[in-house]
Amino acid sequence: MLSKSNISLLQSLQHKKFRREHGLFLVEGYKSVTEFINSAYQIEAVYHTAAIAPKMLKLSQKMNFQEISSAILEKISALKTPADIIAVVKIPQWPVLNYTTLNKKFSIVLDGIQDPGNMGTIIRTADWFGIENIICSEDCVEVYNPKVVQATMGSLSRINVHYVDLENVLSETKLPVYGALLDGENIYSTDFGSEGLVVMGNEGKGLTEKVKQLVTKAITIPGAGNAESLNVAIATAIFCSEINRNKLK
Amino acid sequence: MLSKSNISLLQSLQHKKFRREHGLFLVEGYKSVTEFINSAYQIEAVYHTAAIAPKMLKLSQKMNFQEISSAILEKISALKTPADIIAVVKIPQWPVLNYTTLNKKFSIVLDGIQDPGNMGTIIRTADWFGIENIICSEDCVEVYNPKVVQATMGSLSRINVHYVDLENVLSETKLPVYGALLDGENIYSTDFGSEGLVVMGNEGKGLTEKVKQLVTKAITIPGAGNAESLNVAIATAIFCSEINRNKLK
Repeated sequence: MLSKSNISLLQSLQHKKFRREHGLFLVEGYKSVTEFINSAYQIEAVYHTAAIAPKMLKLSQKMNFQEISSAILEKISALKTPADIIAVVKIPQWPVLNYTTLNKKFSIVLDGIQDPGNMGTIIRTADWFGIENIICSEDCVEVYNPKVVQATMGSLSRINVHYVDLENVLSETKLPVYGALLDGENIYSTDFGSEGLVVMGNEGKGLTEKVKQLVTKAITIPGAGNAESLNVAIATAIFCSEINRNKLK
Repeated sequence: MLSKSNISLLQSLQHKKFRREHGLFLVEGYKSVTEFINSAYQIEAVYHTAAIAPKMLKLSQKMNFQEISSAILEKISALKTPADIIAVVKIPQWPVLNYTTLNKKFSIVLDGIQDPGNMGTIIRTADWFGIENIICSEDCVEVYNPKVVQATMGSLSRINVHYVDLENVLSETKLPVYGALLDGENIYSTDFGSEGLVVMGNEGKGLTEKVKQLVTKAITIPGAGNAESLNVAIATAIFCSEINRNKLK
């Protein structure tokens, strides 16, 4: 049984303030929970309903599993349609970003991404294309937000997300800094080489002026000129796909 | 002034049943409203707050503009953060899909897309890449859903969306039918030619069995093999981008 105070602690994790305070976040759904169990993340507890009990046997027996009623699970859940299983996961202490870990690969840099769905989709897309590191400005939406976690479909368990001062990182790196801008080089004729940072800007405002100054190669996705812009997760995916195509050549 | 019965009619347009009944839907936000005014859609009315009144002068004076209080506008709005302006737009009677209009171009075919954000993003992406027609199975989310309209960022005003029996269309067309499947030809080495249909499946279940049978070319986006799948709007965008790259060669 979960005590009332436990339930309210878990409910409080829907809010960033309390996630910070307790150093915990929630992962919902069998697939995502399984991927977090099989990752380096530390799992504090797993709550599930009777409906999913038979599937629980397949998971590691070392975990602290607790069966609870659907009514209680719904109370804890941050989702409109709660899953049958919720894990309470420790927010990791990321090591300080070591610039040399960014060498010989591509990383995504996000400048003020606000929408949790976009952030989650970018993490899932990065995972698909084998990108390991996402570097976020401090004002990006927090990745432990339940909507971000849900949109990553488990990929958050495999991607390193760093919140940093972007100006510092971009001014000190020797890697090429590719920026999605409107009047850059055509992405289809760009040779991305074997390493670099791909910088994507805020949904409404694009790149901040300071970050724009640190872009070394402005790149454009050519379109038919009807829509004013592409969604930022879509633009990120097209960059990832072009880099992937380059690698496979 | 808006009467009480008018307000409740406008509020009812948040639900598909009443959109069908009245043949109307809502478009919110200055940019989107402007694009619908400049399109072939018929605008029934435009409601705006005093805050946006100066900008209204730039718009066509033939429209039926009405200034209302922010409190009333908030009541009508389907958005969490209401904009300053809402248009009431007629749902068009789309002409029956004429197969020959699909020749010599690419169209997107959607098989059971459920998420309004995905649908909206696909429409916006299609518009960016100059794709004119989107053909939806009858169980796809309705494009006049406020969340779809918002996610299209005005692009809905320029794209023809047809709801049809997909089996009919796909079995009668002579165009190549490209399907996003896991064990198909590598998308990076596919020659898409100059016309075709690109079929994308439901978020959880992918393509229905019947539609899968009608795919003539299975295509795969190669990844690093970590994430189990890509989000459907992301996969659609990568197809659009590859087709665009082919065209520009």
